Amino acid sequence: MTYCVGLYLKDGLVMLADTRTNAGVDHISTYRKLHIFEVPGDRVYMLATAGNLAVTQSVMNVLTEAMAPPKKADEDSAKKKDSKKKAKDKEPAVGNLLKAPSLFRAAQTIGAAIREVHRVDGPALEAHDAGFNIMCLFAGQIKGQPHGLYQIYAAGNFIEASEDTPFLQIGEHKYGKPILDRALSQDTDLKDGAKLALLSMNSTVRSNLSVGMPVDLAVYKAGSQTLAVRKRIARGDPYYDALSRQWSEALTAAYQEMPDADWLEV
Amino acid sequence: MTYCVGLYLKDGLVMLADTRTNAGVDHISTYRKLHIFEVPGDRVYMLATAGNLAVTQSVMNVLTEAMAPPKKADEDSAKKKDSKKKAKDKEPAVGNLLKAPSLFRAAQTIGAAIREVHRVDGPALEAHDAGFNIMCLFAGQIKGQPHGLYQIYAAGNFIEASEDTPFLQIGEHKYGKPILDRALSQDTDLKDGAKLALLSMNSTVRSNLSVGMPVDLAVYKAGSQTLAVRKRIARGDPYYDALSRQWSEALTAAYQEMPDADWLEV
Repeated sequence: MTYCVGLYLKDGLVMLADTRTNAGVDHISTYRKLHIFEVPGDRVYMLATAGNLAVTQSVMNVLTEAMAPPKKADEDSAKKKDSKKKAKDKEPAVGNLLKAPSLFRAAQTIGAAIREVHRVDGPALEAHDAGFNIMCLFAGQIKGQPHGLYQIYAAGNFIEASEDTPFLQIGEHKYGKPILDRALSQDTDLKDGAKLALLSMNSTVRSNLSVGMPVDLAVYKAGSQTLAVRKRIARGDPYYDALSRQWSEALTAAYQEMPDADWLEV
Repeated sequence: MTYCVGLYLKDGLVMLADTRTNAGVDHISTYRKLHIFEVPGDRVYMLATAGNLAVTQSVMNVLTEAMAPPKKADEDSAKKKDSKKKAKDKEPAVGNLLKAPSLFRAAQTIGAAIREVHRVDGPALEAHDAGFNIMCLFAGQIKGQPHGLYQIYAAGNFIEASEDTPFLQIGEHKYGKPILDRALSQDTDLKDGAKLALLSMNSTVRSNLSVGMPVDLAVYKAGSQTLAVRKRIARGDPYYDALSRQWSEALTAAYQEMPDADWLEV
């Protein structure tokens, strides 16, 4: 399983993802699920993936190949006769993410990459009763345009975060939702947003074995077109451990200060 | 869906259950899921049920009929010839819960009731592709014996809470688990335990539509053989609302007091 959360704040964006992949409980690995595409001064994208690792890796490869297509194959085909027809056949189904004219179009491009992988692998997965399982969070900003956060489904369609729903989650999302439901609004600043995302992750890691350290954090300040924080937080990280310990202490102190009910005489 | 939580504390037991049942989102009803069996001075049982409502109601009926079997049928059959054989045929598969010699045997009796309902209804449910879906929390104490808390499965088998795992949950359990993981231990007193259970429920109700008010709370002090608190808390309850509001405020204050990371410059 996986837990990734994205915050869509007035001040910018926060993305946080764990790195654990597992097939059952006896095949546990670490893979990066938070991918950054940055063209400083022009655009920043953050893409977090959950689901079947073979599917998510294929989607990432389709996207990166579309940004910088393998040269040799193109040159070879250009030399051949009826190259025009062949080139048309090979016309990429997926555009260059880095040239998308808007964040909406970039989300569409990621959706197209998912559909392309489904076209290639979907029937075989179905034949083996293995689901085509992928879910993405995609956030970023292109210069001169608003920043945004999208959740992209296995069908390649997507929804966008709004001021009423300033966070989106994928994967094992339930443990870490209450703290965000209670404490987060779109006016939360980026520092507090990063802390809330880390606390939400910490609660999930504590309660669910399939979500594990290290975690990858990215913080983006709106209008900057460059990441403010891009950090891997490993097991034993002093700040993360202090946050976890102090949060437990704060919660314990907080519930003990809650008022007694007059009917609660024991 | 449902959320029920049971706490197994040194000082006693806390049981809390919501009352929402739903088939999809357009057939929502209120049903009691926390059932109390109390013989003051002798024993107290608390039984919380989750799952298919037809199954859980049948199990409750099997259990209550076994405590006080319908009279007439017995008298009639006693008058007939070969009554001995018939009586043997009709020998109840399920014992009288109120006469169980131990809490372990009482949990077995509940398991037997579940198996009896499965024997009667299981094949038809299977033919309709409807799952035989039930999960119970069972807690209580018989005079002179230790108090205990069990989780009983659809197969009629069960596990028992221990000092290492002082709470058990059924139904929609993930939202309300982090607060219990962090703040609850077996040494928590009953008042604080009840507050933590209510906060765990409150987080669940806030984040998940299928768990809803009112909620039923029972608090039992070990060695008393009578319930200390047996209360239905309805929407708009002043104490519950204050608890919810103050908890949100306390969480918000708590995360804002968490330290900043030196690398978190935004």
